[in-house]
Amino acid sequence: MATINDNYLKLKAGYLFPEIARRVNAFAEANPDAKIIKLGIGDVTEPLPESCRKAMVKAVEDMGDRSLFKGYGPEQGYAWLREKIATYDFQSRGCAIDASEIFISDGSKCDTGNILDIFGNNNKIAVTDPVYPVYVDTNVMAGHTGPTNEQGEYEGLVYLPINAENNFTAELPTEKVDLIYLCFPNNPTGATATKDYLKKWVDYAKANGSIIFFDAAYEAFITDPNLPHSIYEIEGAKDCAIEFRSFSKNAGFTGTRCALTVVPKTLMAKASDGSDVEVWKLWNRRQSTKFNGVSYIVQRGAEAVYSEEGQAQVKELVSFYLENATIIREKLTAAGLSVYGGVNAPYVWVKTPNGLSSWDFFDKLLQVVNVVGTPGSGFGAAGEGYFRISAFNSRENVEEAMQRITENLKL
Amino acid sequence: MATINDNYLKLKAGYLFPEIARRVNAFAEANPDAKIIKLGIGDVTEPLPESCRKAMVKAVEDMGDRSLFKGYGPEQGYAWLREKIATYDFQSRGCAIDASEIFISDGSKCDTGNILDIFGNNNKIAVTDPVYPVYVDTNVMAGHTGPTNEQGEYEGLVYLPINAENNFTAELPTEKVDLIYLCFPNNPTGATATKDYLKKWVDYAKANGSIIFFDAAYEAFITDPNLPHSIYEIEGAKDCAIEFRSFSKNAGFTGTRCALTVVPKTLMAKASDGSDVEVWKLWNRRQSTKFNGVSYIVQRGAEAVYSEEGQAQVKELVSFYLENATIIREKLTAAGLSVYGGVNAPYVWVKTPNGLSSWDFFDKLLQVVNVVGTPGSGFGAAGEGYFRISAFNSRENVEEAMQRITENLKL
Repeated sequence: MATINDNYLKLKAGYLFPEIARRVNAFAEANPDAKIIKLGIGDVTEPLPESCRKAMVKAVEDMGDRSLFKGYGPEQGYAWLREKIATYDFQSRGCAIDASEIFISDGSKCDTGNILDIFGNNNKIAVTDPVYPVYVDTNVMAGHTGPTNEQGEYEGLVYLPINAENNFTAELPTEKVDLIYLCFPNNPTGATATKDYLKKWVDYAKANGSIIFFDAAYEAFITDPNLPHSIYEIEGAKDCAIEFRSFSKNAGFTGTRCALTVVPKTLMAKASDGSDVEVWKLWNRRQSTKFNGVSYIVQRGAEAVYSEEGQAQVKELVSFYLENATIIREKLTAAGLSVYGGVNAPYVWVKTPNGLSSWDFFDKLLQVVNVVGTPGSGFGAAGEGYFRISAFNSRENVEEAMQRITENLKL
Repeated sequence: MATINDNYLKLKAGYLFPEIARRVNAFAEANPDAKIIKLGIGDVTEPLPESCRKAMVKAVEDMGDRSLFKGYGPEQGYAWLREKIATYDFQSRGCAIDASEIFISDGSKCDTGNILDIFGNNNKIAVTDPVYPVYVDTNVMAGHTGPTNEQGEYEGLVYLPINAENNFTAELPTEKVDLIYLCFPNNPTGATATKDYLKKWVDYAKANGSIIFFDAAYEAFITDPNLPHSIYEIEGAKDCAIEFRSFSKNAGFTGTRCALTVVPKTLMAKASDGSDVEVWKLWNRRQSTKFNGVSYIVQRGAEAVYSEEGQAQVKELVSFYLENATIIREKLTAAGLSVYGGVNAPYVWVKTPNGLSSWDFFDKLLQVVNVVGTPGSGFGAAGEGYFRISAFNSRENVEEAMQRITENLKL
């Protein structure tokens, strides 16, 4: 008899975004004339940079020319892309990351999930609360947790609460943990991390032999020159951290699909006999065996991000969304709400007014002003009483949504 | 202390294709004037069909138009692609596969590896020998095996030998197995399966509650109208089989990346409490959580395969490689070699002459006539004494390689 991976049955049935879609669709059906504005899911809305499109058209043409045609590429990605990333994203900031330490993939969602393949089942795992649900769910699927308690917390995970009291930056855990997920600029709270803050984590990891999974998917939104874009800006991080990055939110590749993971060759973890094993070798073997590289066409599009025009176009795109974030922050603040994030990040994290629950505020916003956001409780128990508003939309929609909220919501 | 997945340490160090590359590079360095012809790795060489390229250029243009721009698509793939696949690849052959049962992915290598995520660790696994190495290695990584023995076989796997004696079609296992990998047309042997043969497996699987992983990546090469293209052409297969398909070898997408997996909604497997669980639900959850869909641009390219021009262009491409296979078969047969496959399949499987080992024949072919193939022993212990030659190359190269072998190899 073929048996299933029973751990899947521990997963809570209602994943956040499908539940949002269900409520929005029900409302839209009942109110066909309502002009709903979606500031929920963190998906980009503006066209791809012209330089990326040009490069991809050229790449498609290459595929029609036998002498330029590309079959299987390196599973790790083409050297011309990895080298540009190493130069522009890391070495330019003083991080000694080599191109060979960069693995191109089709998405950070995949990478942050798949990375668990190469680690043991006995690691103690820490996540922040609230958190990007994929970190938690992939650990549940891998059998690293027990069932959920009443708050929806999985047994066996170490939850590190982030909230207004700690400025949305988790304290170091009081118990010893082995694998730690950190995301800065943060999804969902929009919080950022200083170098001093990250240094505390690097020191912790080095002292405890832990590994940090650092999700930097939103680094392009950092405008404050004092904030680090990469964990490798912190001394010692190459010995204790894996970094995930994506072209989704800087160049608008959510539907084009390209990301990358950095695994430094100096990063070690323990085999069960106590010996040190290079994590790079394991990830390289994993990717070579279970992955066949990213589309040549898409990699050429990603490469164009590093051209002079590409850099300017990406900067313009990011600035556009950041201006949206500023509008959202200012309007909601003026409306009397407590607002966090939205500076150096595309997410604005709002305290729900009058003690409303996250889902009650969601329903109120949808029904009264036809604006969709994301309930903070969907990101974890400690997100209850908060609400995420995304800056990914047109200026017109953002302005109209804010006008409706400030004028009609009656907080 | 962060610990690794110790199962990775069981993997044999030298993966087949890197070892081939090493020997070829060493020879090329020592013999810079040798014109080496590669008929080793199963990678396509001819340009993408024009209809696919046109569709992808249009899709890139869509990405530059805000009203047509695509962000995150469905993790399962766009409905317009899934529906065409259901209609043209399955329903047209009498297989009642619905579009919702088709999951678009970036490669069959990924899917055949990732599928293990949703199954339990206590399943008894059967593979043929020789076999596509990914099936074996992903089971090793998942901890489903012990270490290797002297023949390189992993403890715990059930190996089903395929050879000239059984016409390269495995016998049913004598012990009970739960998950079975079958690949037809076969990589590496080029063997095909009749409906009667597949029916024996479907009956076995249904009688034993087993699930068949059916890899149909090479189905486009079937020209014999009596041979099944899909396992779902066999009655009952929807209750016991998952099918993997790819655009890599029909439309030349090895560097463009698009594939699909069919999980029928009627397929059940057992939870540890003995209850039946829909495998579709688990795979859907796995893909939703650990995958973010295939590039919109690439999906549009795959869709074009189903246009009238696309169908004609793909047919032409496949015929071209099949003619190469015919040339290889005929020339090697004329040279006195025992040759299998290469009909309804792009691979020719050759018995090495004079009792040479697979690697000895590899070295001889490389050194004497500068032709690269793949040693059969690289696909498993029972592949020893065989050799794979791929039909994926230009006509000119195939003809020259065969001329060199027949005239200069001195068998």
